[in-house]
Amino acid sequence: MSRNIVLYIAASLDGYIAKNNGSVEWLGGHGDDPNVDNGYNDFYKTIDTVVMGRTTYEQIINELSPDSWVYKNKKCYVATRKHHRPDERVEFISDNIAAFIKNLKTQDGKDIWLIGGGKLIDEFVKHDLIDKYIITIIPTILGEGIPLFLKNNSEIKLRLIER
Amino acid sequence: MSRNIVLYIAASLDGYIAKNNGSVEWLGGHGDDPNVDNGYNDFYKTIDTVVMGRTTYEQIINELSPDSWVYKNKKCYVATRKHHRPDERVEFISDNIAAFIKNLKTQDGKDIWLIGGGKLIDEFVKHDLIDKYIITIIPTILGEGIPLFLKNNSEIKLRLIER
Repeated sequence: MSRNIVLYIAASLDGYIAKNNGSVEWLGGHGDDPNVDNGYNDFYKTIDTVVMGRTTYEQIINELSPDSWVYKNKKCYVATRKHHRPDERVEFISDNIAAFIKNLKTQDGKDIWLIGGGKLIDEFVKHDLIDKYIITIIPTILGEGIPLFLKNNSEIKLRLIER
Repeated sequence: MSRNIVLYIAASLDGYIAKNNGSVEWLGGHGDDPNVDNGYNDFYKTIDTVVMGRTTYEQIINELSPDSWVYKNKKCYVATRKHHRPDERVEFISDNIAAFIKNLKTQDGKDIWLIGGGKLIDEFVKHDLIDKYIITIIPTILGEGIPLFLKNNSEIKLRLIER
């Protein structure tokens, strides 16, 4: 059995993963700790690799967790079209992300977490690369922001495995 | 305790309530009967009034159920800006829907079901008229269609009461 690419992410009730400025503070919303409520710890054990886009990477190292790398002990890939100064904690991939990911799936290992953000998710959706969607809906209507799903996808029928 | 305005509706994983042509056939999706799975019968007993937009009304009487009116024994309101030939099964409301609904809430009765469609829902959301959101997420990515939530809403924080 090959590894799954898993999109594990939270979205507002109206389908946004962040405010327009990238803010995700609203995720904590009502004083709940989303890491506890959403099965994060259990999920985190099922993956050994994370993939994220450049904007997400820069947000993590500059804003969300500037003092320590949050995905220690995981193989970390950052998809980018820009040249980046080396960061030993991650590997930058810039050519044909879809082919790279397809190849990654043929290798042994645990599941692969697609972290985001919006543009990378859209690329994965459009290539139908995602094996499992674990979407946590936050009971907030944001009104505007960065959408989880962009338009003009082909119809993809999924199977509900857990609610 | 006043009556609740309840938005009870199904949406695709990417947030659409219908295809661009209004089609909702995909709701049945994988051969499941959504009326059974989504607690429809229990919900239906909690309401005595339905509110819908003109497009939804016309879709029901012309396409979805031309032979019999589906909301028998419920008080039915249709919000419209066009003049309509009378239909004894419904009451057309055209002036200041928000005020009309607010007044309806002060009257005795069971809950009020906001059926849709997109434009009427948006008007209710923007006036923050909805007391309870019961959203069934269909595990299908439609790709495009009529969105459940339009943009430029004010942020509305809800409270999760059941998942």
